[in-house]
Amino acid sequence: MEFRPIILVVGILLATLAASMAIPAAADAVVGNPDWQVFAVSAGVTMFVGVSLALTTRTGGSRLSARQAFVMTALSWIALTVFASLPFAFSELNLSFTDAFFEAMSGITTTGSTVITGLDSAPPGILLWRALLQWLGGVGIIVMAIAIMPMLRVGGMQLFRMESSDTSEKALPRAAQIASALGVIYVVLTCIWAAAYRFAGMTGFEAVTHAMTTIATGGFSTSDGSVGHFDSALIDGIATVGMLAGGLPFLAYLRTVQGNLTAVFRDSQVQWFLSIVVLAILAAAGWLWFENGHDPLQALRFAAFNISSVITGTGYATSDFSLWGSFAVPVFFFLMFIGGCAGSTTCGIKIFRFQVLYAAAVTQIHHLIQPHGVFIPHYNRRPIPDDVITSVLSFFFVFGICFALLAIALGMMGLDFITAVSSAATAISNVGPGLGPVVGPAGTFQSLPDTAKWLMAGGMLLGRLELFTIIVLFSRAFWRG
Amino acid sequence: MEFRPIILVVGILLATLAASMAIPAAADAVVGNPDWQVFAVSAGVTMFVGVSLALTTRTGGSRLSARQAFVMTALSWIALTVFASLPFAFSELNLSFTDAFFEAMSGITTTGSTVITGLDSAPPGILLWRALLQWLGGVGIIVMAIAIMPMLRVGGMQLFRMESSDTSEKALPRAAQIASALGVIYVVLTCIWAAAYRFAGMTGFEAVTHAMTTIATGGFSTSDGSVGHFDSALIDGIATVGMLAGGLPFLAYLRTVQGNLTAVFRDSQVQWFLSIVVLAILAAAGWLWFENGHDPLQALRFAAFNISSVITGTGYATSDFSLWGSFAVPVFFFLMFIGGCAGSTTCGIKIFRFQVLYAAAVTQIHHLIQPHGVFIPHYNRRPIPDDVITSVLSFFFVFGICFALLAIALGMMGLDFITAVSSAATAISNVGPGLGPVVGPAGTFQSLPDTAKWLMAGGMLLGRLELFTIIVLFSRAFWRG
Repeated sequence: MEFRPIILVVGILLATLAASMAIPAAADAVVGNPDWQVFAVSAGVTMFVGVSLALTTRTGGSRLSARQAFVMTALSWIALTVFASLPFAFSELNLSFTDAFFEAMSGITTTGSTVITGLDSAPPGILLWRALLQWLGGVGIIVMAIAIMPMLRVGGMQLFRMESSDTSEKALPRAAQIASALGVIYVVLTCIWAAAYRFAGMTGFEAVTHAMTTIATGGFSTSDGSVGHFDSALIDGIATVGMLAGGLPFLAYLRTVQGNLTAVFRDSQVQWFLSIVVLAILAAAGWLWFENGHDPLQALRFAAFNISSVITGTGYATSDFSLWGSFAVPVFFFLMFIGGCAGSTTCGIKIFRFQVLYAAAVTQIHHLIQPHGVFIPHYNRRPIPDDVITSVLSFFFVFGICFALLAIALGMMGLDFITAVSSAATAISNVGPGLGPVVGPAGTFQSLPDTAKWLMAGGMLLGRLELFTIIVLFSRAFWRG
Repeated sequence: MEFRPIILVVGILLATLAASMAIPAAADAVVGNPDWQVFAVSAGVTMFVGVSLALTTRTGGSRLSARQAFVMTALSWIALTVFASLPFAFSELNLSFTDAFFEAMSGITTTGSTVITGLDSAPPGILLWRALLQWLGGVGIIVMAIAIMPMLRVGGMQLFRMESSDTSEKALPRAAQIASALGVIYVVLTCIWAAAYRFAGMTGFEAVTHAMTTIATGGFSTSDGSVGHFDSALIDGIATVGMLAGGLPFLAYLRTVQGNLTAVFRDSQVQWFLSIVVLAILAAAGWLWFENGHDPLQALRFAAFNISSVITGTGYATSDFSLWGSFAVPVFFFLMFIGGCAGSTTCGIKIFRFQVLYAAAVTQIHHLIQPHGVFIPHYNRRPIPDDVITSVLSFFFVFGICFALLAIALGMMGLDFITAVSSAATAISNVGPGLGPVVGPAGTFQSLPDTAKWLMAGGMLLGRLELFTIIVLFSRAFWRG
C-alpha cells in the first residue's frame, strides 16, 4: 500500500490542529494563566510534526483507493487524539497520559465523558480546548459522512451516496464543495446558539464554549454541574433545541438554504427521530409528573433536556436521571444506543439503521405470511438495495458484539454491573455520562482503572468510525491486499 | 381461516396433558397427600375440554396452511399453559392464578424461573408436575423444530429444512417418523441420566425429576437450593454433561444412532457451541482460581456447572454467581442470550444464528475491502441462501427490540436496573434465574408485581416460539389473509 498520500493528509490535519491550539493559548495569555505556554509548546510540536509529515510526502495528488481511505481515516483520528492530548497532559491539571488521552478522545469523538473535576475553577484555555476539540470533531464527522463514509460503504452509509450525489448534480458539483457549504452552516448554527446562550444570561465565554459543544452534540461543559449549573429554564430550552438541531442531517439544512424550505422535515429520518424524541419526552415527563410528583412544566423541562441529551449523545445533564426512579434507568440505557440522523454530529446506531431494520423486519413478517409474495423494503420511498440491508443488519450485530465484549472487559477491570454496561454503551455510542453512582451524570470517569479508560477510549473511536472502519484493519485480507 | 383443524390439535394436546396429570396424582396418592384430588379434578376438567374440542372438530385430515400452523402453534402453547396451571392454582401451595400461570409457563417453556419457595417440603405431586411440564415442553420444542418450524421459516429455521429432508429421504420417510425417533432418543437420554443421578446418591424421585429437567434444559429442582442442595461433585458433573447434551441437536443423535457415529461432532453448530462453552468455563474457572482464591478443581467444577447451566438456559444453580465478583455478572448476563443448538431443548438466540451472523459480518468485511469481489457466506460448508441471512439478521434485531421493551416495561413496574434487564433476558431466553439480589440464583420471582409476572410469561412464550410465531399474529396482513 502507498502510504504517502495518507501521511500527507495526517500531516495537514495535524497542522490544522496545531493552529487551533493558538486559540486556547491566547485565552490563557489574556487572563495571565501560565498554561498558555503549554498550549504554545504543544502547538509548536504538533505543527512541526504535521508540517514535516506533509512536506516529506508531497505527491502528485492521486485518487485514494478504498483501502487507503480506511487507513487514512483511522490514522487521522488516532494521530489527532494523541497530539490533542498534549495540552491536557502538561497543563496545570496534571493529568496522567491515560487521563489526557481519554479526555482528548472523549472530546474529538464528541463523546463528552470526562475525568476532570473542578471545571468551575479550571483555566479558560483548558475549557476552551475541550470545547474546541468537540467542535472540530463534530464538523469532522459531518464532512466524513459526506466525503468518505459513502465511499467506504460502512454499515449501510452507501445509502447516502445517492442522496449526496443527487444534490451535487443539481446544485453543487463536488463533494468538497458540499463539505465547505456544510462547514459554513455549522459555523452559522454555532454563532446563533452562542448568541442565544449569551442572551439567556451566560457570560460570553460560557456562551461560546457551550454553543460549540451543543451543536457538536459533544457535551463538555465549563462546570462540574454541567448545564444544571445555570439552573435556567431558558438555557435548558436553548440547549434542548440545539442538541436536537445537531442531531439532524446537515445535508437537509443545505437543501433548506438552497430554497427547499421543507427539506428537513420531509426527510423520513427526521420524522422518525423527532417522533421518537417526542414520545420519549412525553413518557418521561408523565412519569416525573405522576410518579415523582414534579410540577408538570418542570417535568417537561427536565424530561425534554435529558432525553434530548442522551438520545443525541450530547451528554449534558441538569439532574441525575439515575435518581428518577426505576423507570428511568432502563429507558436512558436503551436511549443511549439510538443516536440521531446520519450526516449529523451524533453517534450510536442512528435512526436510518433502525428504519432499515424495521423495514426488513416488516418485510420478513409479510414474507412469513405469504411465502411466495415479493416484498421490497423501502427507505424514504425508495427500495433499499439488498447490500444495504445486509450492511445495516451486520452493523447492528457487530455493534451488539462490540458492546458485549467491552462490557465484559470492563467488568473484568472490577467495575460493577451498571457501571460496566453503561460505560460500554456510553463509549461506543459517544454519549458521555454513564448510569449509576460512579459514572452517572453526577459522577466522572476519574476513578476508573487505567485499563478501563484505554478500553473506553478504544470503544469511542470504534463507535465514532462506525465500527467497520476500525475492524477491517484487523482483518488479514485487508493487508494481503 | 378454517379453525377446525387447529382446535382439533389443541384438543388432542389437552387430552395428552390431562393424561399426564395422572402421574403426579398417583405420586400424591401414594404418599397420602390430599393434593391428589387437585390433580384428579384438573385432569378431569382438562380431559373433558380436550376431548370435547377434538370430537366437535373432527375433520377429513386436510393439510394445514402456514397461517393455520402459526395460529395452531401459539394457541396450543397458551392453552396448554392455562390448563397446566390448574394444579398449581388449586394445590395446597395456594398460589394466585398469576403465580400459577407464571410457574406453568416457566415450566412448559423450559425456562425454570420459579415463584415457589419451600420446595424441599412440597408434596411430591407438585414437584413431579413441575418436572413433567419441563420434560413435555422440551420434547415438544424438539418435535416442533423438526416438524413445524422449518415450514414456518421463522428466524432462519428454514436452514434446517434441507437437513431434515436429507435425512428423511435416506432413512426415515416422514417428519412424523423422525419426530417419533427423536422422542425415543429423548426418553432414553432421560433414563440414562436418571440412572446416573440415582447412582450418584439421589433418591429415585429426585433422580427422575432432575433427569427430566436436565435433558429438557429446564432447571426446575426439588430443592430451594437447586442442585447445590446435594453438594456433590459427581452430581454436578452428571448435570453439567446432561445440560450440554440437552443443548445439542437431537437430529445429530438420530444420525449417530443410525450408524453415523461422528455426526454429532462434525456438525459445525456443535463445534461452535462446545468451543464457546469450553472457553467460557476456562475463563470463569481461571477467574475463580486466581482472583477469588478457589481451589483450582473446585473452580473448574463451579465454573463448568454454572456456565453450562446459563448458556443452555437450564437455570440450575450450585452457587450464587452474582457474588463471584464484578467479572461474572456481565459474563453471565451476555451468556444468557446465546443458547444452544437448533433442534435442541434450549432457547435464546442459538448458536446457528451466531454462525450465520458471523459469516455475514465476515463477508461484509471482505466486501468492504474488495467492493467488486463476490463473497458468499457459508454454513456447514454450504452457501447460505440470501433469505436465510435476512431472516436471521431480522431475528437478531427483533430479539434486541423485544428485550429492550420488556426491560423498560419491567423497569416501569418498579424493578431496579439489574433485576429488570436480567429478568427480561432470562424470560426471553428461557434461562431461569436472573441476576442480582432479588431474582438471582439465590432468589425467586415471587416478590415481583403481578404485571411483571405476566409480562415475563409473555416474554417466555415469545422467546420459546422464536418471536416471529407470535409477532405475525399481531400483524394486520396476517388476518386480512
